[in-house]
Amino acid sequence: MTVELISVGTELLMGNIVNSNTQFLAEKCAMLGLDMYYQVTVGDNYGRMKEVVKTALGRSDIIILTGGLGPTEDDLTKEVCADVMGMELVEDLHTRKHLEAFFEHNIYREIPDNNWKMATVPSGALVLDNGNGMAPGLILEKDGKAAILLPGPPGELYPMFEQQVFPWLSGRQQSVLVSRMVKICGCGESQVEERILDLIDSQTNPTIATYAKTAEVHLRITARGATEEEAGRLIEPVLEEVKDRFKEKIYTTDEHVNLETAVVELLKKHRLTISTAESCTGGMVAAKLVNVSGVSQVFMQGMVTYSNEAKMGLLGVKEDTLRTYGAVSEETAKEMASGGAAASGTDVCVAITGLAGPEGGTDRKPVGLVYMACCIQGNVAVREYHFKGNRDKIREQSMMKALDLVRLCILDHEASR
Amino acid sequence: MTVELISVGTELLMGNIVNSNTQFLAEKCAMLGLDMYYQVTVGDNYGRMKEVVKTALGRSDIIILTGGLGPTEDDLTKEVCADVMGMELVEDLHTRKHLEAFFEHNIYREIPDNNWKMATVPSGALVLDNGNGMAPGLILEKDGKAAILLPGPPGELYPMFEQQVFPWLSGRQQSVLVSRMVKICGCGESQVEERILDLIDSQTNPTIATYAKTAEVHLRITARGATEEEAGRLIEPVLEEVKDRFKEKIYTTDEHVNLETAVVELLKKHRLTISTAESCTGGMVAAKLVNVSGVSQVFMQGMVTYSNEAKMGLLGVKEDTLRTYGAVSEETAKEMASGGAAASGTDVCVAITGLAGPEGGTDRKPVGLVYMACCIQGNVAVREYHFKGNRDKIREQSMMKALDLVRLCILDHEASR
Repeated sequence: MTVELISVGTELLMGNIVNSNTQFLAEKCAMLGLDMYYQVTVGDNYGRMKEVVKTALGRSDIIILTGGLGPTEDDLTKEVCADVMGMELVEDLHTRKHLEAFFEHNIYREIPDNNWKMATVPSGALVLDNGNGMAPGLILEKDGKAAILLPGPPGELYPMFEQQVFPWLSGRQQSVLVSRMVKICGCGESQVEERILDLIDSQTNPTIATYAKTAEVHLRITARGATEEEAGRLIEPVLEEVKDRFKEKIYTTDEHVNLETAVVELLKKHRLTISTAESCTGGMVAAKLVNVSGVSQVFMQGMVTYSNEAKMGLLGVKEDTLRTYGAVSEETAKEMASGGAAASGTDVCVAITGLAGPEGGTDRKPVGLVYMACCIQGNVAVREYHFKGNRDKIREQSMMKALDLVRLCILDHEASR
Repeated sequence: MTVELISVGTELLMGNIVNSNTQFLAEKCAMLGLDMYYQVTVGDNYGRMKEVVKTALGRSDIIILTGGLGPTEDDLTKEVCADVMGMELVEDLHTRKHLEAFFEHNIYREIPDNNWKMATVPSGALVLDNGNGMAPGLILEKDGKAAILLPGPPGELYPMFEQQVFPWLSGRQQSVLVSRMVKICGCGESQVEERILDLIDSQTNPTIATYAKTAEVHLRITARGATEEEAGRLIEPVLEEVKDRFKEKIYTTDEHVNLETAVVELLKKHRLTISTAESCTGGMVAAKLVNVSGVSQVFMQGMVTYSNEAKMGLLGVKEDTLRTYGAVSEETAKEMASGGAAASGTDVCVAITGLAGPEGGTDRKPVGLVYMACCIQGNVAVREYHFKGNRDKIREQSMMKALDLVRLCILDHEASR
């Protein structure tokens, strides 16, 4: 089955915003095993939108439109689709009630007249309630083709797609699709692919897809079966094989867990507190940990010691160490980590010092050289990295690797107890 | 003149990456005064790409294609465009030499045979040298239409567009386009628009466009003239008027300066050192400052004091203050700032404490309540904010407002000396 995406909105054509909805929908459609050949963006113009919708319905089985469902005169998606598919617009009482309730709870004033436009739907449409906004989503079907109309704001689109559209699309395929996510840190994408090439090549159900992220690789195993159980049974041995090949490099098999959450969960599980001592990352590791709601149970304090004075003053790094080995050295990283743990009174402290560039590199210590150390109850592990890319890229990779170092050190520490 | 964007790449259709090139190109085309009605994404498939290119050349004056210029068999953009426009592919000696030089400097091994594919160009094409990669860009012209073919990687595309394509497009319009950027902090987009509505409405040359960013608004004034001087003369009075209306809320009129750079420049100019004391932002303000290369001249240290113990231990906040007013209070913010400056021995210290949620809010202190204070040579200014949005949004707004508070405090401090 083929699917085509149509993004509606003049703000996209003007470059005012990045079209992130398209990536979200494309990834979900790929997971569903739908074939996508085209993505089109068109402005809030009746004639041009009509032409685009007509062309898309001519060449694709399903079209998904985002945006243009709001209350203003510029919002034309519903009108154009009804026109192309030969449907009449009628008032939907259920949606009218939903709008009334939404206004009562969220806006505390009378409903402007033009808002009732959102309660009209093409006759025969399947209405998708909007749990996070006003305009409902719609699914229109005719002559074996379907048009799925969704609101543009990601906060409304994402949950509506996940909860209502994904199951609907999945159901049309007369089989169930189940997928499991494996998140790997410490291997590049090509390394990951090489290690599982035989698995990728040898089978079509389940399939394995890899996605490269900063300093991590996500691997999605997807199986199709008559029932959820059957698909699950197909996934299980492949998942086990993948786990066996990557072992502790896998930090989660939960779609919704990211690296910082995995680290915080591990700290909580082993009742360990943490502090951070950062030079080139300048607070990024601390900020990432503080992304996790409830981190206050384990994260005590962070120290950004960009200057040598701060490294000595806050972390107790010895002047002699800085003079002999330099601020970017294994020795300084170690002293930052153990000094940081002592200054903070935490079980764990992770330290990062490196050259993010663009200036400051030498032949012996080039830009991209980063040392990181993790002190855990007195034991210090240290790592040397050579990152490529600009200042931002080097700092971002350092941050991710530092979080992963904490994770691996805790696993090690707990295994050796 | 109309322009259409075509993004080529199956990875976009699979949702593996976000299409950020499109926003970049759309914003630049809008600056150039070109009308864009369509953006299309198509995979690495000869037949479908040909259909898309044909349609686009039929309805738009200029088409800009990105991606599919590399050395592999999947890279078909050049071949398809030459086919549609009836051009033959011939070897380009200049490009061949460029490739040889590139390999010599960057890859240190023999050039794989398939790489010579990148040295063939449609006959009559204008070749755009790639300063940051291998595949050159190309401009093909026929029957009053033009196809501009650009490499997909942003690191190659952006400079090639800015340095070679922008001037070429500008030159075709038989007039010169000049624009000036005004970056404003401390006003929402609708507030900014309201204050300059008369300017926006009353004129078409120059035009004024607003772009909402996190906690700032960018305002682009663009004029068209026969010469650069003429366009500049048209911009000048409008720029002066805008400066007069927003005064110190404008942090720069330089396109390439961001808020953290403006703050660091201001610190350097007045020879002031800075430290940070962060709670809910968890190191984001420090990390943002460390984005600026050469920040070590002014930024001494950052303290992430997420726990009450850290606020007392690192910053000397009084236990009594925390007990009486709470960690999220004007009083705590003030003590964090003055204590942070004292602990770090810096001229300036900015402190942030707030409730980023999702948990922890109360009726009196709801999620989104953030206090920030800036201590500058003993004088402390404090601000209360109520931010909307999720945890990420609240933290990001807090970070930007904190940087702006530093900027405004320095301006105040210098004015009163």
